[in-house]
Amino acid sequence: MISLLTPPMPAPALLHELGAPTLAAIEAAAERIRSHAVRTPLLESPAINALTGARVLFKAEVLQQAASFKFRGACNRLLQLTPAQRAGGVVAWSSGNHALAISAVARLLDMPATILMPSDAPSTKIDGARRNGATVRLYDRLHESRETLGAEIAARTGATIVPPYDDPYIMTGQATVGLEIVQQSQALGRVPDAVLAACSGGGLVAGVAAAVRALSPATAVYAVEPQGFDELARSLQSGQRERNAPGAVSMCDALQVAIPGELTFPVNRALLSGSLVVTDDEVAAAMRMAYAELKLVVEPGGAVGLAALLAGRLDVRGKTVAVVLSGGNVDADTYARILQPEA
Amino acid sequence: MISLLTPPMPAPALLHELGAPTLAAIEAAAERIRSHAVRTPLLESPAINALTGARVLFKAEVLQQAASFKFRGACNRLLQLTPAQRAGGVVAWSSGNHALAISAVARLLDMPATILMPSDAPSTKIDGARRNGATVRLYDRLHESRETLGAEIAARTGATIVPPYDDPYIMTGQATVGLEIVQQSQALGRVPDAVLAACSGGGLVAGVAAAVRALSPATAVYAVEPQGFDELARSLQSGQRERNAPGAVSMCDALQVAIPGELTFPVNRALLSGSLVVTDDEVAAAMRMAYAELKLVVEPGGAVGLAALLAGRLDVRGKTVAVVLSGGNVDADTYARILQPEA
Repeated sequence: MISLLTPPMPAPALLHELGAPTLAAIEAAAERIRSHAVRTPLLESPAINALTGARVLFKAEVLQQAASFKFRGACNRLLQLTPAQRAGGVVAWSSGNHALAISAVARLLDMPATILMPSDAPSTKIDGARRNGATVRLYDRLHESRETLGAEIAARTGATIVPPYDDPYIMTGQATVGLEIVQQSQALGRVPDAVLAACSGGGLVAGVAAAVRALSPATAVYAVEPQGFDELARSLQSGQRERNAPGAVSMCDALQVAIPGELTFPVNRALLSGSLVVTDDEVAAAMRMAYAELKLVVEPGGAVGLAALLAGRLDVRGKTVAVVLSGGNVDADTYARILQPEA
Repeated sequence: MISLLTPPMPAPALLHELGAPTLAAIEAAAERIRSHAVRTPLLESPAINALTGARVLFKAEVLQQAASFKFRGACNRLLQLTPAQRAGGVVAWSSGNHALAISAVARLLDMPATILMPSDAPSTKIDGARRNGATVRLYDRLHESRETLGAEIAARTGATIVPPYDDPYIMTGQATVGLEIVQQSQALGRVPDAVLAACSGGGLVAGVAAAVRALSPATAVYAVEPQGFDELARSLQSGQRERNAPGAVSMCDALQVAIPGELTFPVNRALLSGSLVVTDDEVAAAMRMAYAELKLVVEPGGAVGLAALLAGRLDVRGKTVAVVLSGGNVDADTYARILQPEA
């Protein structure tokens, strides 16, 4: 069990140089997406508070449009497009939540969207992107490069490529999660001692860290990753972007990248307290806890923060901890299986 | 498909005579329970809006303390007890959500609570009441009278009996759901054309109708009941409290009463537009929709309002409709089975 530890707050000039979203930019993003995105509630459970000995505040991004925080970044990014770019549409690649978010925002803004998705993505995510009106092109994760396919489509159609995390507007959009966490905690008379957010490419946790630590420098922000995809944990230790070994398997379909983001890693390195790693069994237990005590459907990748807390990765007794429940898109058969571990 | 129709608003003096909660009493209850109860969010789904052709605003009482609206009434009632009554504790009977609510409030207020529950209540409800520290006494629904057992316990221990719906403070507490629906709709620039709420004893829908129609007399408020337990629908038609035929079966464990409440029926008769009736299959489809599109765990009895909308019971095209998702306490094995109708 790790004690909370907060690294010193870097000087604003250094943060700027590293590409961290500024508070002014985050506040502007919040205003920009306000009429489209949900200001998701901060929820808590007496049972989970009792279990952890902490006051745990859950930022329920499963209640966001398209059921994940990805909507914020997608919305902030697509609202920056010029009229000409809007007409050309967008192309994106995603295992799922970015696909759902981009397709939902494109529909709102009446733009064409083409999404590349791995053929083994959860069907609820593939079907959802199609229902949002996007053209979905499935690719073979092992034998095709989504970057190459995406660049071809962009060249052919004039569409703008919208990357899932390595983009300043995406990172700044995700940062609005952190802004709201601090605002909503303050409304409860609290400042979080720690904030936990899932990490794949690192856009969410980088944005959250930028917002939270700008407003509360003493708050410790932790990434949480699934076993086998702990690239950030290892990269933070070595000081450089480390790759995951190929062939790893995790139930967290949303959190599988090869290497930390190029733009997100410097921000995370400067602001995070660390990255916690959880197992599939711990994730499943957290999903069951969210079902039983919060009545929220949380997908595997969305439950890693709660999993880390329940598994005792951090010593949070007596503390106030905010946990982002980042997404809720999980196939019903998978969810039903996870709810009944003994069946 | 029924067109929306709102009965004339009765005069305040008549409503008072009928025992309807006044707006002043509802506002006082809201203030009284404010630091304990959750101001649950009003959520919506583009997919459900598209399916129904309406703007549907979901009052997510599954996110309430103890995962149902019952917490509001229990809280408003128990906060009225004198110090001497508090010391004597409370006794209540309930198939589940009232039990969870009373036990949760009793724990908050550090009072003993004894709850009588039918032995066939969902185990998540029985276990939850016990985890909240209540003494749970199971009874046989067919061969024992909960009223008699409760009166015996009250006589022996000095505990105060807290009925599930036939109590002015309970009804007024539940009415805060309606107050918030109107306030939160107004914040979105809307006034609901219709409000749908589940009906068992009738405390929720009576309270909601009292609040909503005090603030917006033109809004139509409908109860929703499960097939086999449509006592209110039939009572509204005949003008007197009608009993359900014994032996009816419904998956809505929370909505099974024999006859409309003595105090709630006159209020419902004066204020409601009617009561809609839904089948188990329609309820299951609504639970799946809430899972897929809202990411909320809704129990069968909590999903009847959405079920009525999806089944096309009301003509709501072009309208703004608020639907109370009243509870989320459902056993995991039941829920998993409902999520996979074809498995």
